Amino acid sequence: MAIITLLTDFGTADGWVGEVKGVLATHAPAAIVHDITHDIPPQDVDAARLVLARTWRRWPRGTVHLVVVDPGVGSDRRALAVSAHEQWFVGPDNGVLSPALLLPGARAVELPVPVGAAPTFHGRDVFAPAAARLAAGIPLEQLGSAADAPVVRRTPQPVRMADGRLVGEVIALDRFGNAITNLPGTMVRVVSVGALVLPVLRTYADVADLEAAAVVGGSGFVEIAVRNGSAAQQLGVARGTRIEGHRAPA
Amino acid sequence: MAIITLLTDFGTADGWVGEVKGVLATHAPAAIVHDITHDIPPQDVDAARLVLARTWRRWPRGTVHLVVVDPGVGSDRRALAVSAHEQWFVGPDNGVLSPALLLPGARAVELPVPVGAAPTFHGRDVFAPAAARLAAGIPLEQLGSAADAPVVRRTPQPVRMADGRLVGEVIALDRFGNAITNLPGTMVRVVSVGALVLPVLRTYADVADLEAAAVVGGSGFVEIAVRNGSAAQQLGVARGTRIEGHRAPA
Amino acid sequence: MAIITLLTDFGTADGWVGEVKGVLATHAPAAIVHDITHDIPPQDVDAARLVLARTWRRWPRGTVHLVVVDPGVGSDRRALAVSAHEQWFVGPDNGVLSPALLLPGARAVELPVPVGAAPTFHGRDVFAPAAARLAAGIPLEQLGSAADAPVVRRTPQPVRMADGRLVGEVIALDRFGNAITNLPGTMVRVVSVGALVLPVLRTYADVADLEAAAVVGGSGFVEIAVRNGSAAQQLGVARGTRIEGHRAPA
Repeated sequence: MAIITLLTDFGTADGWVGEVKGVLATHAPAAIVHDITHDIPPQDVDAARLVLARTWRRWPRGTVHLVVVDPGVGSDRRALAVSAHEQWFVGPDNGVLSPALLLPGARAVELPVPVGAAPTFHGRDVFAPAAARLAAGIPLEQLGSAADAPVVRRTPQPVRMADGRLVGEVIALDRFGNAITNLPGTMVRVVSVGALVLPVLRTYADVADLEAAAVVGGSGFVEIAVRNGSAAQQLGVARGTRIEGHRAPA
Repeated sequence: MAIITLLTDFGTADGWVGEVKGVLATHAPAAIVHDITHDIPPQDVDAARLVLARTWRRWPRGTVHLVVVDPGVGSDRRALAVSAHEQWFVGPDNGVLSPALLLPGARAVELPVPVGAAPTFHGRDVFAPAAARLAAGIPLEQLGSAADAPVVRRTPQPVRMADGRLVGEVIALDRFGNAITNLPGTMVRVVSVGALVLPVLRTYADVADLEAAAVVGGSGFVEIAVRNGSAAQQLGVARGTRIEGHRAPA
Repeated sequence: MAIITLLTDFGTADGWVGEVKGVLATHAPAAIVHDITHDIPPQDVDAARLVLARTWRRWPRGTVHLVVVDPGVGSDRRALAVSAHEQWFVGPDNGVLSPALLLPGARAVELPVPVGAAPTFHGRDVFAPAAARLAAGIPLEQLGSAADAPVVRRTPQPVRMADGRLVGEVIALDRFGNAITNLPGTMVRVVSVGALVLPVLRTYADVADLEAAAVVGGSGFVEIAVRNGSAAQQLGVARGTRIEGHRAPA
């Protein structure tokens, strides 16, 4: 049975998710629907893009990922369906699907907007029906014509300085107040955040309660954490805060 | 396989949803369970009623909707199961099921309270078992005797004035801070909110960033929005705020 | 088909749940996955333990409960799989699985940490694969060797005083602001919270709006509630607040 995952900024309390799931249950009754999240901050395309980047590779072949964070809904931004790595991805052409579009061999088609679709709710009227068709085995090419040059957004890359430092930044804060950076865990042994210098340890529990730690997170990037506390609150780090990486103690 | 949807104000953190889903998995093992939401504000019957009104029609024939927002749990308010439009609806007799009860041909039965049911948790002990039985194919009439005159709550209707204005109100605020009104999108071309006059546009992106817009939402009613902002915060609109509709620019 | 339930403090917005569900869908494609909650307060082992205590008994034989609230992830705390009451439980050895471990005949094994597992994300790399294997029918004993003396945490028990009073406490606050105590509903007829004396009634609706009530909750313990209000806010009760129970009006 095909799997459809949902990744949106809809929240659940307003019923939009309930409408989308109803459309999927009607048009792809045999599909299994899994919630990734509906708690992306409203309109935060980059947050959704990062969650997609972290999650898609864990799903089996044939999974359809429905990703709707869509500030430009109803405008001339295109609607896309993408095939990559034997999975499918459906969502607006605003960069949110970049993790799929950047995969080798990715193909994208532009979805037509059905007559009668609400210009304010393409999640229900454009994207969900397309996801249902893919889950039902309809080939990508039957959903629309090839889409040239889809919008791609990239996570900022760290910069290597002449003295060997790797200058990166915080790209996300998580629920635990951990600050996730763009510094690959394989490339640095020590990080500095302003005047604070932290060796990269194995895990949060390698420091005492309420102490700061740098560790390698589940996606392979360095995180700044405070054990049983919040790095975001206690260290004042935020998205964009500069973090430097060093190969050996500074 | 039968579908059961869940629409409650339980939140998830306290485990009530986990108990209800366990009861469903035990008594209707072949049913597919979908969360509509558990984030209805506590005790907000009208918010749940509006979500049900928006969502039920998207679901296929045979779906069972379990709707529990129940400030009067354990009192003499009745427990209902309703058949309407080839779907089923289970919940308290406090108006939350009105979108089903108002459908042509709707039939309601009163569910008996099983011996031993917790007077504080009918979601688990009365409504979930009834939903499981309907999902398993047991006819409505076997669940209880006909319920006369169930409680119906209606969304306030706009009023047509002698000068042609349609006087309505905000009936809900959504996660994006959009104010959803009771003015049908087919009936008005311009709305006014206090001194602010807004033409009804196609979609949010038809105005500049942080500007106010009126658009027709996914359910066909006029919404007041602020692009990439919050109408609730920036315009000070709330549930009940008066909104006037005009057929032509005022 | 086997059922896997998820009970975590991950939230959903960061994608961790999306990764875990992907692992389950890959390794146990026939399993049905149900969310209990991902909204346990970060690192709150006792809150998760109480939710597990309330929910597990409602699930059918063969259910696998994946419970991950894991402040010690990657440290020398053990990873466990537990068989009890014909269900399975997988999670860290920090007491969160106590409701299962305390059941008669419970057996626990220590899960090895696979090579390459992220020391910061055992939910994805240790616990989810083990849950998938149990759901696929692999016997507990094949997952690891017997684990002696797993960590058990217990809800504080009320104390019977010489004068017959039962001295208990608030063990949790729920979404409605109700204060759940450790006083069994079968043992007390009246409770006192400071100077406030409340008879134990049938249900919330047995008092007037905004009045305080004591009732027996769905798990059989006395709760302090304020009808259509919040006992937490209006009475100032919190986790640990002393509550006394009496057999007859004080």
